[in-house]
Parts: sequence; structure tokens; C-alpha cells
Amino acid sequence: MSYQQLETILHPRSVAVIGATANMTSFGYSYAHHMVEYGFKGPIYFVNPNYPEILGVKTYPSVRDIPDQVDYAISCVSASQVIGVLEELAEKGVKGVHLFTARFSETGRKEAAELEQSVLKLAREKGIRLIGPNCMGVYHPKAGISFGYNLPKDSGGVGMASQSGGGASGFVHMAAMRGIRFSKVISYGNALDFTECDYLDYFIRDAETKIIILYIEGPREGERFFEMLRSAAKVKPVIVMKGGRGKAGSRMTTSHTASLAGSFRIWEDLLKQAGAVSARDFEELADLAVSFTYLPALHGNRIGVIGGGGGPSVIAAEACEEAGLDVIPIPEDMREEISRRGIPIWDWISNPVDLSIVGGSGITDIDMLRLMGRHPDFDALMVNMNEWVLYTLAYDERYANLVNQVKNYISVRDECGKPFAMVFGEQGLTADNHGDWHWKVLAEARSHLINAGVAIYPTLHRAATALNKVREYYSRDREGYQGT
Amino acid sequence: MSYQQLETILHPRSVAVIGATANMTSFGYSYAHHMVEYGFKGPIYFVNPNYPEILGVKTYPSVRDIPDQVDYAISCVSASQVIGVLEELAEKGVKGVHLFTARFSETGRKEAAELEQSVLKLAREKGIRLIGPNCMGVYHPKAGISFGYNLPKDSGGVGMASQSGGGASGFVHMAAMRGIRFSKVISYGNALDFTECDYLDYFIRDAETKIIILYIEGPREGERFFEMLRSAAKVKPVIVMKGGRGKAGSRMTTSHTASLAGSFRIWEDLLKQAGAVSARDFEELADLAVSFTYLPALHGNRIGVIGGGGGPSVIAAEACEEAGLDVIPIPEDMREEISRRGIPIWDWISNPVDLSIVGGSGITDIDMLRLMGRHPDFDALMVNMNEWVLYTLAYDERYANLVNQVKNYISVRDECGKPFAMVFGEQGLTADNHGDWHWKVLAEARSHLINAGVAIYPTLHRAATALNKVREYYSRDREGYQGT
Repeated sequence: MSYQQLETILHPRSVAVIGATANMTSFGYSYAHHMVEYGFKGPIYFVNPNYPEILGVKTYPSVRDIPDQVDYAISCVSASQVIGVLEELAEKGVKGVHLFTARFSETGRKEAAELEQSVLKLAREKGIRLIGPNCMGVYHPKAGISFGYNLPKDSGGVGMASQSGGGASGFVHMAAMRGIRFSKVISYGNALDFTECDYLDYFIRDAETKIIILYIEGPREGERFFEMLRSAAKVKPVIVMKGGRGKAGSRMTTSHTASLAGSFRIWEDLLKQAGAVSARDFEELADLAVSFTYLPALHGNRIGVIGGGGGPSVIAAEACEEAGLDVIPIPEDMREEISRRGIPIWDWISNPVDLSIVGGSGITDIDMLRLMGRHPDFDALMVNMNEWVLYTLAYDERYANLVNQVKNYISVRDECGKPFAMVFGEQGLTADNHGDWHWKVLAEARSHLINAGVAIYPTLHRAATALNKVREYYSRDREGYQGT
Repeated sequence: MSYQQLETILHPRSVAVIGATANMTSFGYSYAHHMVEYGFKGPIYFVNPNYPEILGVKTYPSVRDIPDQVDYAISCVSASQVIGVLEELAEKGVKGVHLFTARFSETGRKEAAELEQSVLKLAREKGIRLIGPNCMGVYHPKAGISFGYNLPKDSGGVGMASQSGGGASGFVHMAAMRGIRFSKVISYGNALDFTECDYLDYFIRDAETKIIILYIEGPREGERFFEMLRSAAKVKPVIVMKGGRGKAGSRMTTSHTASLAGSFRIWEDLLKQAGAVSARDFEELADLAVSFTYLPALHGNRIGVIGGGGGPSVIAAEACEEAGLDVIPIPEDMREEISRRGIPIWDWISNPVDLSIVGGSGITDIDMLRLMGRHPDFDALMVNMNEWVLYTLAYDERYANLVNQVKNYISVRDECGKPFAMVFGEQGLTADNHGDWHWKVLAEARSHLINAGVAIYPTLHRAATALNKVREYYSRDREGYQGT
């Protein structure tokens, strides 16, 4: 039932923003802005007694003054006003309300927690479903609904439910810069009505969602959650980040979303048993979203690596091994082929392929990558852009060729069809070097890669760790989802 | 003795580049270029029979044709020519030779290893000291000597010896973007003559060097190395990254610099016993260089954290705890002070300070940071810029204020004098968003921080891990260095 209700709420025919305002420092402005900016197609109603219109949209003194039905409402009023607003919205036939409004049970105060329970009781009586309170609500680009500025207006296959609003909007942006797009993202805060289980069930059934991401501080329905997770992980990758793992984190989650954390070790075990993929921070969540979006199934751990001279090759080998991948030696028949071609370093070259060895030898790093791509002993490939070194070379040597080099990598990936990871460092640019052409060339190369759907990671360790988690995921049995 | 010899070699009165060329794709060009570009003050001699001049510098057919003494020479000729070149350089009174030349023992071939030994024998006979072979050599900005393009021309307190050349030049650049500057960096490859111990001893004695960084694949003199490390760590922080930790890495180091790796676990134990700081990759090396350069001594693990809403605060708490820091609750007397000020959230606010709670409460995150800075229970402070969220807010709200906000952070740091870490994500910019003004504003803020000597880290986990390693370092006894 929750699935159908959420589906309806996520596709409203009309939306009201209660507490919309023209004050740009307020979230009441942001939500009003987003309804216009992201192009919601149906009627939009703003409610605020102090404005006749906001952003060119007619604004009503109260919900009762709205001339038509309201399917979905965003509440930006203060906690004390929520009961009144819900009463009025009920008269307008509202199906779902996003309570951006905070200062409920997360304060740890008795009266606030009691008010929260009264809100729930009233919503149940009136047949209104609630997202939140104390949350950013919905980012659903296809419907023209957003919770943040500058988020992509196009859609993709990643669905997310997050107990943190700042985390969710920051994450959407962080992942978007790596090419990820989203089906729906729901920040759900205190989970007063819809719980993590309802959102998880929704994303499992939602055909648009191919990968599910959850940021959870404390589940409302723990047993049902793990049972559902077990079924979920059989049909789609589910990536879970648990907030409130330690002592301080647990203390924090209580004041953040009124959740009780529980032991993280138990969580990790349960996640593993359920077949979900665990992430420890937002960066790793992004790495995993990239991995499951762009990589085909990975069924073995034998990896071929190129990129960089000796030192970076050594560190690449360490990173892969420490993550659980096997940097196998060059297979004998491949070595023989290199020898037959008359390459003088045939007996010396190894995996990872050391760029300082292949230089001038008659075989290139791309040739080596292609050979590893064709050879059945390699399950996956990794390329280390090693872009710091590029910056310390003269223009003529490598930069002029950078986009071509990147296209060569992409062609090898397309030819062999194997899981292919690219390590491409991120740069903390300062005002001095922001305009430097080297970084513009790197940005161009990055765009080529992202447009071609290449999985890019900022460091060797992060790439290796993500690849191995993908491998672990695909090593499990998967079946259909029956629901719970 | 090695110290004096290295000191002389690093301050040559004249330099010759043997195998200099006008072919820009060759390192023979690079080294010639750098001698001119980085402004070496003494006479520069290029040697190549095919050019009358290169880059405006007179070029001699052979070493014998150079009219004067040569203190230091860079050899870019092929391995087979090295013996002849050394004979000629000996006649010119050369003190030290950097053998960029490779294809010696690192090939794993008998003849190449034998040639290497002949080179060493000849050098010993002639009293010539060797850096390398198979390495990038010296970056010594104060002397106008460099091994890479686009490296800083100004100096700083970090000295580095690295068995990897690509790693060293990439690292210098990576760290430079975070504000780090170097005294001397020496990439030493096969360590045929000067070993890791000679470089370590040099950096311990070198007054210009405040922090020592070592990238080592396999020490030539293991026992002496750990003995020296123990003394070194008592006078300056020594940060060590071991290449060749695992199976594949060990295989790689053999072909990279002809080193035998040994067990990493033994290494880790020995490093710990010696009081050195261990790093696992170049990114962590940079984090630690930043930490020891910018942070005062850290003697406790109790940290106060601000920045971001609830989710990022929870994750900040996890990251700190998982690294070994203690995110203590707000001390009672501090809470009472907040209460006395009439702040309504006095009983609810916690550490980390959740930005979504303080908003509109009458106390700001900066106020909270200042209170924690003043309170004796906090040993260190951390600020999470949480810049992803900034991007998803409207201009008027936060961006206009960003540089001011950053200045406020800096003033709190200066006021309290405590170790202060800033988490400021790095961005992998694409061609589409490279010109976006948001990132330019972030670049400006970053410049302010770096110019003020603030320790910046790209992620919460990296910041917390680095801080705790600094704490561990300062928890050890330190005395003077007697040498070994």
C-alpha cells in the first residue's frame, strides 16, 4: 500500500508550498524557487498571508483560499503551526505532505516529541501520508521537484533515501559531477510516518531505479528492514551507509533524527548477510554509485593495471591487493606473444605495466592494456591517469595528446567489455591555478570519460576498494523480489 | 662523510647535462630546460655532439671539450655510455653524478647488473659519488635545480628522498597545491652508491629541512636504516611510505628499483618502534606533510567539530572516532555559558555542532568554534567546509559570505592557537563546470586558507587519520640526534 501511496505522492498533479516567502535566506523561498525553476508541470500554489505573489506565482493567505485540490504539500511553517496546516490540507484532499518543518522529537524535548505524535495521529485520521518531519524531502527531476539549487534536471537510475537532508543534497551534487543521475531522492529525517522500509520497498519496485542508496541513522522497523534488504539485494544493488556507528556518532544521531543507533558491528554483519553493500562515508557512497552504474558484472578478482612509472605502479599493486584484488603476473602465453613481436622488454615487463619501462620499447601502455583486455585471465582492468605527473611534463610531450589518449582507453574498454576503472585525481584548485590551462585540459579529458560512461575514482585505494565490493556483490546469488 | 659530500653535490658551482638534446620528447631536453628555467646561477654546460647550442646554451661535443671544472653532472646517455662518461667526468673533477640513465639491475638481467657494478667500481676509484641510477635526481629550488616542469621555484621545510621518480615529481606537485614547499627532493632509484641512509642522515642534519619524507621500496642497509630512523624521529617528524608491501607490489619493486621488499608487517612494526609515521599512499603522504607543516604539537585526542548539517556531523563524528580521536560531549560549564546567554538550544546542541540546529538560534557555528577553542577540554578543532552543500544553496545565502566565513575560521584558529584542521573537498571538474563561478569562489576561499597556512584535507576520514597520527607522533619522547 505504501508503494502505491508514495508513487502517487511522487507524481502529484498539483503542489502547494506552505510558508513560501520572498526572503531568499529562507527555505520557504528555496522550495518556492525550485517549483518554478525545475519546471513542475501542474498547478503550483504558494501560501503566505504577507505576499500577493512570489516569483510571479499567485500566493494565497491560507490553504483554505487555494481554489482547487492539492495533491502534495511542502510545509515550511514552524512546528506549532503544523497541526493547523494539516487540518486545512485535509480539506483540500492532500495525499502527502513533506514536513520540512523541524524542532520535533530530534530536540530530545518531551513537548516536541508529544507534538510530533499529535501530528502523526492527525495525519492518520485524515489519511495523509507524511515525509519527514525535519528533512529536505523530495528531489525528483522528472517531475520537476527539487530540494536544492543547481541539481541536475535530467534523470538517471540511482534512487536514494536519506535520513540526512544536507547529506542527500550534497551527495546528489557530488555524484552528479561524476556522471551519476537520479530517479528519485527522498530525505526523510525523523521517519515519523513513512519509514526506511517504505522507501526501500518503493525503490525495489520502481522500474526507473536500478541502484538503491540508503543513508540510515536508525531504522524505525529494524527487523522488517533487514528482511526487506535481503530480498532487495537479490534484485538490485543496495548500498547502505550507516550513520551513528560509534559513541559520538550515536549521540549525534539522537539529536539529529531522534534515532537510536545500535551497535555498528551488528549492523555490518546484518548488512553482509542481507547481501547489501556497505559504505563508510559519502565519498564511498559516490564511488559505489559510480561502480554499479557504469561497470558490468565483475565475477573474478584478477586485475590488469597500467599507468604511471615504477612508484605509482607499485602503489597501484598495493592498493589492489589490500582491497582484495589479485594483480596477477603477465600470463605465460601473453608474454610469449610479446616476445614473438620482438619487444626487447618481453621478459621484464610486468603487471602493473610500468610506463617508464615500456617507453621506447616498441610496445605501449595502451597495447598492454589491449592485450590484457583480450586475455581471459584478466577479469577487470584499471588505468591510473597519474595526472600529477602529466602536469610536470612539457606541453608537447603529453598534453597535446591527452584527449586522444583518453579515447584510446575508452576504445579498449569498449572492445573487451570488461569492468574498467579509471583513477583520475581530483584537484583542490586555488585562485592562482584555477585558470591554468593544464587543468582545463584535464577537465576536457574528464568530460570525455564521463560522457563515455567511464567509472572514474579519485584515488587508487578508492578505485580498488569499490571494484572489490562490486565483485563481492556479484559473487552472491540473486533472485526475484517477492516483497515483504 | 656522506653528509658533507651530499651537501657539496647539492650546491654545485657548475653543472653539466650529458646527453642534453633539443628533442622536446626526451628527458635530455627536460634537464637542459630545467637548468635554464629554474635559474641555476653558475656555469651550465650541455654535452651532445649533434648540437652547437641548446636553448641558447653552448653545447660541447664531449665532456673533455668543456673548458672548466664540472662539480655536478646529470647523465642522460644510455647505459652503455655511462662508463666512458664517468671516465671523462673524473678528469673534470666532478664530485657527484646523477644517473638518470636506467636499464641496469632493475631489468633483472645479469649483464645489466654486472654493468651497474662496474659503474660503481669506477665511481669509487675516481672518488665520484652517484645518485641513482634509474631516477629523476634532484629538485632543489633554492639552487635552481629541478627534475620536473611547473614545480614551485620557492623553497620550504619538507625534504624528501624517494625511490620513485614519477612518484616524487607527482608528489611535489600534489603537495604544492596544498601549500607545501620543499627544501630538497632526491629521487634515487636503484641506490647504487648513496643509499636511503645517506639521504636520511643528510635530511636530519640539514637545518632547512623540518620534516622528512621517505618513499622506500627496499632499503639497501636495513639495520642501519632503522637505527638511524629511531634517532631521526626524535628530532624531526619522519614520514615513511613503504612500496612493495604485498605480493604484487614486491614483484613490482624488484623490476622497478631492484629492491627486495620483505614483509610489510615487520616494516610497520619497525617503523612504529622507530617512532616514524607510516603512510600508505601518496595522498596520505601529502596529508601528513600538510599536518606536520601547519599544525602545532597535538598532545591530546579531544576534538571539537563544526560544519554541515546533521548527516555530515554524524559522519564527522564517525570519522574522528574511527581514527582514534575523541569527539567529547559539550563540557558542562560551556553548556551553562550557552544557557546563560539565553540560547534556546543550550540543552540540545552537541559536538559536532550541527549547523541545521544552530541556524536562527542566536548562536552561530563560529561562536561555537570559538567557545571550543577557548575551552581547555578541547585539544584540537576541525571545521568541515561541506562545500557540496554550499553549491546547492542560492548565491545570496552563503556564497557572498564565503571568504568572510573563511576569515572567521582563521581568526578563531589564530586566537586559540590549537591544532586546527579544515576539511575542504577537492573537485574533479569537467569541461562544462570548470568555468562555473561557484568553483571560482571556492578556489578563492581555498587560496585564503592556504595563504594563511591552514591545514586542509579533502575528506573527513583523511583529516581525522592525519590528526591522530600527529597526536601519536607527539606522544613519544624526543631528544637530540647524535648521528649513526
